[in-house]
Amino acid sequence: MSESTPFSAESAPRAESLEQHDSHRLGWIEDSQHAIRVPITEIHQEDSPDGTANPPFRAYRTVGPGSVPEVGLDPWRTPWIEQREDTEVYGARGHKLADDGRTAVRRGAPSQQWQGRKPVPRRAKPGRTVTQMHYARQGVITPEMRFVAMREQCDVELVRSELAAGRAIIPLNVNHPESEPMIIGKEFLVKINANIGNSAVSSSIAEEVSKLQWAATWGADTLMDLSTGNDIHTTREWILRNAPIPIGTVPIYQALEKVDGDANALTWEIYRDTVIEQCEQGVDYMTVHAGVLLRYVPLSADRVTGIVSRGGSIMAGWCLAHHQENFLYTHFDELCEIFAAYDVAFSLGDGLRPGSIADANDAAQFAELDTLAELTRRAWEHDVQVMVEGPGHIPLHKVRENVDRQQELCEGAPFYTLGPLATDIAPGYDHITSAIGATEIARHGTAMLCYVTPKEHLGLPNRDDVKTGVVTYKIAAHAADIAKGHPAATERDDALSKARFEFRWKDQFALGLDPVTAQEFHDETLPAEPAKTAHFCSMCGPKFCSMRISQDIRDTYGSAEAQAAIAGMQEKSREFMEKGGQVYLPDPSVGPPTS
Amino acid sequence: MSESTPFSAESAPRAESLEQHDSHRLGWIEDSQHAIRVPITEIHQEDSPDGTANPPFRAYRTVGPGSVPEVGLDPWRTPWIEQREDTEVYGARGHKLADDGRTAVRRGAPSQQWQGRKPVPRRAKPGRTVTQMHYARQGVITPEMRFVAMREQCDVELVRSELAAGRAIIPLNVNHPESEPMIIGKEFLVKINANIGNSAVSSSIAEEVSKLQWAATWGADTLMDLSTGNDIHTTREWILRNAPIPIGTVPIYQALEKVDGDANALTWEIYRDTVIEQCEQGVDYMTVHAGVLLRYVPLSADRVTGIVSRGGSIMAGWCLAHHQENFLYTHFDELCEIFAAYDVAFSLGDGLRPGSIADANDAAQFAELDTLAELTRRAWEHDVQVMVEGPGHIPLHKVRENVDRQQELCEGAPFYTLGPLATDIAPGYDHITSAIGATEIARHGTAMLCYVTPKEHLGLPNRDDVKTGVVTYKIAAHAADIAKGHPAATERDDALSKARFEFRWKDQFALGLDPVTAQEFHDETLPAEPAKTAHFCSMCGPKFCSMRISQDIRDTYGSAEAQAAIAGMQEKSREFMEKGGQVYLPDPSVGPPTS
Repeated sequence: MSESTPFSAESAPRAESLEQHDSHRLGWIEDSQHAIRVPITEIHQEDSPDGTANPPFRAYRTVGPGSVPEVGLDPWRTPWIEQREDTEVYGARGHKLADDGRTAVRRGAPSQQWQGRKPVPRRAKPGRTVTQMHYARQGVITPEMRFVAMREQCDVELVRSELAAGRAIIPLNVNHPESEPMIIGKEFLVKINANIGNSAVSSSIAEEVSKLQWAATWGADTLMDLSTGNDIHTTREWILRNAPIPIGTVPIYQALEKVDGDANALTWEIYRDTVIEQCEQGVDYMTVHAGVLLRYVPLSADRVTGIVSRGGSIMAGWCLAHHQENFLYTHFDELCEIFAAYDVAFSLGDGLRPGSIADANDAAQFAELDTLAELTRRAWEHDVQVMVEGPGHIPLHKVRENVDRQQELCEGAPFYTLGPLATDIAPGYDHITSAIGATEIARHGTAMLCYVTPKEHLGLPNRDDVKTGVVTYKIAAHAADIAKGHPAATERDDALSKARFEFRWKDQFALGLDPVTAQEFHDETLPAEPAKTAHFCSMCGPKFCSMRISQDIRDTYGSAEAQAAIAGMQEKSREFMEKGGQVYLPDPSVGPPTS
Repeated sequence: MSESTPFSAESAPRAESLEQHDSHRLGWIEDSQHAIRVPITEIHQEDSPDGTANPPFRAYRTVGPGSVPEVGLDPWRTPWIEQREDTEVYGARGHKLADDGRTAVRRGAPSQQWQGRKPVPRRAKPGRTVTQMHYARQGVITPEMRFVAMREQCDVELVRSELAAGRAIIPLNVNHPESEPMIIGKEFLVKINANIGNSAVSSSIAEEVSKLQWAATWGADTLMDLSTGNDIHTTREWILRNAPIPIGTVPIYQALEKVDGDANALTWEIYRDTVIEQCEQGVDYMTVHAGVLLRYVPLSADRVTGIVSRGGSIMAGWCLAHHQENFLYTHFDELCEIFAAYDVAFSLGDGLRPGSIADANDAAQFAELDTLAELTRRAWEHDVQVMVEGPGHIPLHKVRENVDRQQELCEGAPFYTLGPLATDIAPGYDHITSAIGATEIARHGTAMLCYVTPKEHLGLPNRDDVKTGVVTYKIAAHAADIAKGHPAATERDDALSKARFEFRWKDQFALGLDPVTAQEFHDETLPAEPAKTAHFCSMCGPKFCSMRISQDIRDTYGSAEAQAAIAGMQEKSREFMEKGGQVYLPDPSVGPPTS
């Protein structure tokens, strides 16, 4: 590993700081022994009213999103990869104009060619496997593992052992050296993914890069580029080169573009070529719908909403049209060999997931899950990292069964779910319907949540929708971390609650997941600067502020013991508190008469 | 009971239809034997692509919100009340100018005097009890009980027996004859409450009436007027006369105004007079913080966020200042006698609820709950209806304990909770943090959810915030109804999902909880009219539309059986489906080779 600081925010030009709030600052935690430093957000806090200093709060973050889109991020991880000496540069497939679709071919170029730095594609040397799972199983601690252990504030051995067991993944293609390592697994913080991508009817490359940066700024842990329109290859190039977070794709979308949208014309060879194209670009994980088996398709025919996964419906149609088994299933081991050479992780697609609560937990869904479990084991035989995708639309009482069953069948492989939506009746609010299900499923062990934006079922998300989706899912993930008993999860809640009780308004904004919106909402009713130091707010006004009254009580009557003395029950109260606050029943000897 | 139709939308002038969408229409279900009719929303649906007609969907609604604010709603329930002959008009306390605060006294009038019709205050004749609980316990089926049974599509005996047992309430003051009966109890649909109200720093009477109408339009089942500013009495009068839903208040707020905000100057006599003033106006339920006992106050002193209930902090301060027991507790039986005379329901306030997840389920909170259980039983001795308020801020894994404990201690009295928020770190998004907790707590038996708006902790909700809060809580309540297995709960989900799969865009909008927003979001990307009949949308475009592909599969290959034949597994599949869709393990004899 390089002796120089391997990761510097300054080595590539930066467009802007992109801090969420003026109380936020980029900081670092350092492991000088291993020359690793990990970015954190330092959130400044004011002193308490009694003069006690409140130390800056340190929050998980990515440093990356502030790159100049035309230049991209620094490939800072390259030394780590090179030093392992198990990869090589080779005569790569490279970029073909046809990869960008017919419009680009006609034009002779994609609409906006990538001109920035491009890493030279590399892959495993013959006979070598370069996955983090492989290293972990060999007992090797990589810098990537140390990096995520520092981010997660856990022991690096926990990282290694979870990777080795397949219960966690670090999705990180050797051709995506710009990305900051992160881990997905139920022993770690719950992660969230944001989906972006153009379609045939909408959006530009610049817009998509801007959505990536916006998503990363607000806390997306990974991002999927689901583009299905023009310039698919080049859009992805721009995204990857600017992505400080792992990027996922669904290669069947691009493969389908290559056969002009005729699903029946798809072949393994076209698909394989597309996968290699994307491996060389640096895609970190790919959704593969290899579990949609021919014999499962009829199980979906009587559903209320049929097959709602795009990849699932494409493969189902192909299977029936050809009277053949899904080529992703029959060629799965070849796919594993390719993935092992780049360290691309599988995201085993749930092509038969339910699209309505009526179809939840049905035969089609669970039949496919059995096959995903089989495929998980086959990938592991190649030391390829795997996560398993899950639904979708599930009523709340049926949510837990999904994660319990997946964890059991797939032997703890990380579960990665889309929501699920707990009801179908609120188009326009599906970030909320799904956050309810997402919190429930994450609480019981789902490792990553794919966000849902307010536009779900209605249109493509714009920048605002991306932010709303990300913040909503940060809430779901964090609420689940707390419910799971993650050791550090409540620290931020406690800091914010203390700030709230002490009327440190700015700190309350800054410690929130979206300081901008919080401050705007406050200022709508009380815009003046003094209102931000006022010991009340517009909700109740000074006379009715419960927290002010509550503080006055504390100031006037002092500690719990002093108050208990006033209440004439010092003994009772002390006794009570010595018992650790266990609730006692009303005792008529000290209480008032009951009639 | 009157022979004439007792409830007509046409007898008072109406400002506007206030339907949510042009596919919505006011309809009625009628019980001609008892001359009762109940409003419903008829949601028009288009035919399916195969020509099958889809009947109008019938949704729960209130007819009321379209009144002319200056005129108010028709007092249509008066004949039901009069016919019982157990109430009388009396020399009422009436309205005093001081009830509206010092500004009104100075001015000689409230800022906008109520000029519309005002019911003459009535109360129980001496020796009579006029609560729905009392009737239910006597075995009497009232028209109000029939009305709610029709709304809930359940047997009226279930309504009566749940009321008699105290497990449900119909909050309905004899002086609020404009309101449509509704029931709160865990055997029925989960209800939601919206809070509005002015404060010393903001808002006008017209604004508050507009918020009431807006909240009712989007589905609020009850509304609390939490005004603490000027014109408290008159604002409430405007709200009550225009309210088709029960209205709740916290009388201590107005009582505190009457002593110029000096909590220590509060007395039982001032409070009692305020309660009678509000009973005469028609308030249907009142929050009473009678469980904040002197000896419990010290238990809150070491909390992160102290006491966050306004009523709770006022009473805690009073108890300590006077070294006396809470006068609401010591005078509770007198309060019961007053409530019994008007059929006002208790909402037993949780003055010591936690204001942060750090304080959740602590000694102070659960000590108060013990007392609320005691007070529930005392109210029931007077045949007075009771619900019990709950938190607040609770991490998800501690939510269920709250409702289980309350249900056990309070013998099934309806639980009415504020959220709870599952995390404290998202000011600006607390409608979402709380909807997550609210769905969980409702799923386990909470009968009514008090909404939280995006402005919570930051400012007073405006009209938009009220709508966002209401729709978010309709989601939580509905998701809980589904999870509880409410018989009819999934009907709307299924209708919407079918419309979605059939690309009946307008029906998808109309069946949603907020058709306006759904349509706006759709039109943002594809505004043209043909897009609303298109068999795809902006998300994927035609080539990638999974539902279109899925429908094509169905059209091309037919039923599940026909598809199974193609898959060469007709026998297996039929067998499978005859077993009711139990999942089978992959059988190598019919599957592809695994290597």
